[in-house]
Amino acid sequence: MTATIKLGELAEFLGATLRGSKEKEITGLATLQEAGPAQLSFLANPQYRKYLGDSQAAAVLLKAADAEAFAGDALVVADPYAAYARVSHLFDPKPKAAPGIHPSAVIADDAQVDPAASIGAFAVIESGARIGAGVTVGAHCFIGARSEVGAGGWLAPRVTLYHDVRIGQRVVIQSGAVIGGEGFGFANEKGIWQKIAQVGGVLIGDDVEIGVNTAVDRGALADTVIGNGVKLDNQIQIAHNVQIGDHTAMAACVGISGSTKIGKHCMLAGGVGLVGHIEVCDNVFITGMTMVTHSITEPGAYSSGTAMQPAAEWRKSAARLRQLDDMARRLKHLEKRVGDVTPGSNVSSDG
Amino acid sequence: MTATIKLGELAEFLGATLRGSKEKEITGLATLQEAGPAQLSFLANPQYRKYLGDSQAAAVLLKAADAEAFAGDALVVADPYAAYARVSHLFDPKPKAAPGIHPSAVIADDAQVDPAASIGAFAVIESGARIGAGVTVGAHCFIGARSEVGAGGWLAPRVTLYHDVRIGQRVVIQSGAVIGGEGFGFANEKGIWQKIAQVGGVLIGDDVEIGVNTAVDRGALADTVIGNGVKLDNQIQIAHNVQIGDHTAMAACVGISGSTKIGKHCMLAGGVGLVGHIEVCDNVFITGMTMVTHSITEPGAYSSGTAMQPAAEWRKSAARLRQLDDMARRLKHLEKRVGDVTPGSNVSSDG
Amino acid sequence: MTATIKLGELAEFLGATLRGSKEKEITGLATLQEAGPAQLSFLANPQYRKYLGDSQAAAVLLKAADAEAFAGDALVVADPYAAYARVSHLFDPKPKAAPGIHPSAVIADDAQVDPAASIGAFAVIESGARIGAGVTVGAHCFIGARSEVGAGGWLAPRVTLYHDVRIGQRVVIQSGAVIGGEGFGFANEKGIWQKIAQVGGVLIGDDVEIGVNTAVDRGALADTVIGNGVKLDNQIQIAHNVQIGDHTAMAACVGISGSTKIGKHCMLAGGVGLVGHIEVCDNVFITGMTMVTHSITEPGAYSSGTAMQPAAEWRKSAARLRQLDDMARRLKHLEKRVGDVTPGSNVSSDG
Repeated sequence: MTATIKLGELAEFLGATLRGSKEKEITGLATLQEAGPAQLSFLANPQYRKYLGDSQAAAVLLKAADAEAFAGDALVVADPYAAYARVSHLFDPKPKAAPGIHPSAVIADDAQVDPAASIGAFAVIESGARIGAGVTVGAHCFIGARSEVGAGGWLAPRVTLYHDVRIGQRVVIQSGAVIGGEGFGFANEKGIWQKIAQVGGVLIGDDVEIGVNTAVDRGALADTVIGNGVKLDNQIQIAHNVQIGDHTAMAACVGISGSTKIGKHCMLAGGVGLVGHIEVCDNVFITGMTMVTHSITEPGAYSSGTAMQPAAEWRKSAARLRQLDDMARRLKHLEKRVGDVTPGSNVSSDG
Repeated sequence: MTATIKLGELAEFLGATLRGSKEKEITGLATLQEAGPAQLSFLANPQYRKYLGDSQAAAVLLKAADAEAFAGDALVVADPYAAYARVSHLFDPKPKAAPGIHPSAVIADDAQVDPAASIGAFAVIESGARIGAGVTVGAHCFIGARSEVGAGGWLAPRVTLYHDVRIGQRVVIQSGAVIGGEGFGFANEKGIWQKIAQVGGVLIGDDVEIGVNTAVDRGALADTVIGNGVKLDNQIQIAHNVQIGDHTAMAACVGISGSTKIGKHCMLAGGVGLVGHIEVCDNVFITGMTMVTHSITEPGAYSSGTAMQPAAEWRKSAARLRQLDDMARRLKHLEKRVGDVTPGSNVSSDG
Repeated sequence: MTATIKLGELAEFLGATLRGSKEKEITGLATLQEAGPAQLSFLANPQYRKYLGDSQAAAVLLKAADAEAFAGDALVVADPYAAYARVSHLFDPKPKAAPGIHPSAVIADDAQVDPAASIGAFAVIESGARIGAGVTVGAHCFIGARSEVGAGGWLAPRVTLYHDVRIGQRVVIQSGAVIGGEGFGFANEKGIWQKIAQVGGVLIGDDVEIGVNTAVDRGALADTVIGNGVKLDNQIQIAHNVQIGDHTAMAACVGISGSTKIGKHCMLAGGVGLVGHIEVCDNVFITGMTMVTHSITEPGAYSSGTAMQPAAEWRKSAARLRQLDDMARRLKHLEKRVGDVTPGSNVSSDG
């Protein structure tokens, strides 16, 4: 399960400048503090530079500017974090599934499964579905009618795609994610909610990642659309007809209400919520647990909520907050009165 | 997979007044802007009236008052949104499961499955469970011991019912939902949490919908109860012994703590949280991400949280908020002093 | 499915003082208000003392101090809630799985399954995994390569462990939980997110409980670590490399960002969110929906957010809050001006 790769091979793979023994064997990755003599480490964040000198790592990925500070072997690169990202996959202990269909899988006669795809135990693939080359469909996955998974995709065990979900190439979906569930569409007739069939599908671009137990609902009429390179963390809710622009990333527990449109290269921190039918422009960063109730038209960072306090102080703040409108009024009144007494700037105060 | 229905048939189905060709064939639904010449559209929200004139739709569901504004074929109804809801199911591409039991399903000898029910691949149905007529149990579903699904229910693939979960008629449950999980019940003995068995069940009424990855915990002693017509969106948490009144709807990511009781015809927007052991009366609307920490006894709308700001401004507000108690005190003091100085109504100040 | 136990046996089991008939048969548990003549109840919370006198319970678990107030049979104990917790398991209708492997399960040749373990239908156990004595692996569970479940564990149907997840003894995991998913690790290269392989695992202690649809991500390099006795409710998100101290409990919908470290004996109420790379010391209580943006170094209770108001009032508060920095400035200015006019106490006012 553990790869062994020579330092010289890693240098070649990364296009790095090697300082040290190209024959040294690397068996894994670790932080500067924890790396042992067969492990590769990296220095990306300057705040960890203090651990560099004493690191026991077999070698360190670092910038030229940091090379002096480490006496051991090094792979010198322009962007150590990006290099670490690239090399990390070489040491990934994640089992690789062999091509082929597990005998227990249930696959519709007219589904198309590429011979170079891997279909796990108890997977169900429905009529008209298409699984591309090199795709891994984990155990217990369900691929609904006419749904498609593009080449190079990786579906963890227990991923559900409803019908008419089209997924691009190299898409990664973690366990428990559900793509294409029926969105929350109901018409209220005299207090009774009548269900509206959700006849749209889901369209997911290339190089998307979808986290554990995340839900992406199908469209009510048109499709819900996730752009290329979008990264969705765990426990996220994407409602019907949401559109997410390319290369936008969302941390865990975000909820996006129906028909909201989010631009490209946005970042939503954990627990953020967006109401429906709004638009967020490109390059917006929203801090954790912010409630977004209207469209955002200017790039930049946005927040809501209050800062944490000891609970006893918080109770006072929270009580005062409810008096804030009254306070504002009293302040204005007071200003007026003081203005009466002490007229503007030309105060004739005799102190 | 796509239905073709004549306009005249739709008029009859809806009890609508047809203006146009009753032989025209409709193959699907779309918005006014996107509908093509074989698709039916609708005008419900007045803000979309601007798209009516130019719509390419084969026909439009609309009110008599809007009929003039559209030159093409129309189905005139009293409530176009409700009519759209009703007609949407005719064009739903969702596959219909045929009655019968998939040969891979594992069904206890003493479970009762109606011959008109459909049981999907790899479903597991435990001892004493009962599945009613016309029920669809999707692939990978688990129906625990003695649990019941009433006639006409539809369980998406991968729904889990623990034991002793009783579900009414025509209930829809989306993938990943878990009904009857063991609630969070622990007794703290000298810092150690001791588990309390959750011996109650779950009782779910008729016409309920439960969304993707939503959890409804079983009762600690008595049952957790979900009323008739309740609609729960995705990623919702319903704790043990919660009671939800008929026709209440909750958007995604709501969390309800244990033993809280919610009235009828309430609406909880996304991300709302309720503490335990409180009561919310009928006809309450709670806005998104509100934290409900005490009972609500009057119908109406309720909110908490703060409005979003650019992050730099927000940091100032958040810092000031922590000074709010101090500000309130200073304001009061100032009022007193200014009152002393400036003889408000009848101040006899002698300084 | 329902146990019948004599009152005398219960007294012996609990070490309780029995007042009444040791031959009386108990068939279940219920609250004081709902208990019938064959059910045991308990009085732990003083606010329910009012129901004691009229309770129809067969017997009541109570403290000596409360024994006078109940005329019927009683089991007198020092801690009635803890006694109820202990006795609750005797009446749990949860089916007990018999040891053995369901014929439909798919188990790798080199996986080790203890003969006293129970493996449910359609379970998949991968290469090198180890399942201890007395463990229940529910239907549709997936146990990844080299993962281990210690003796006495109970996995509900449909639990997913990725590879290299090590779980201690007597751990309970509810349906839909996913342990070892790939954390949200990406390096941003010129606006494009590059995936970082998550090569760490997950280490879970003894006596842990993990709720429905909760996610615990694997570590990026080292392991994500959950201490002994930790209780995680439903719908929780634990990101990569989080560390949680022994006997800490979290209510539903909590989200913990990457590399954050939480102490022992902490309690996080529902919906709390923590940013990444912070530390929370032992014995901290965080109230519902609080956003924790920095480390906590002192034990105690902490909060953020605002109190709920009727929405119309809330809108005013929220608007005023955005003016708060301005208000604070004006207040200070006014204080200065009033100070100019009325210096301290010895005011020489000319009103």
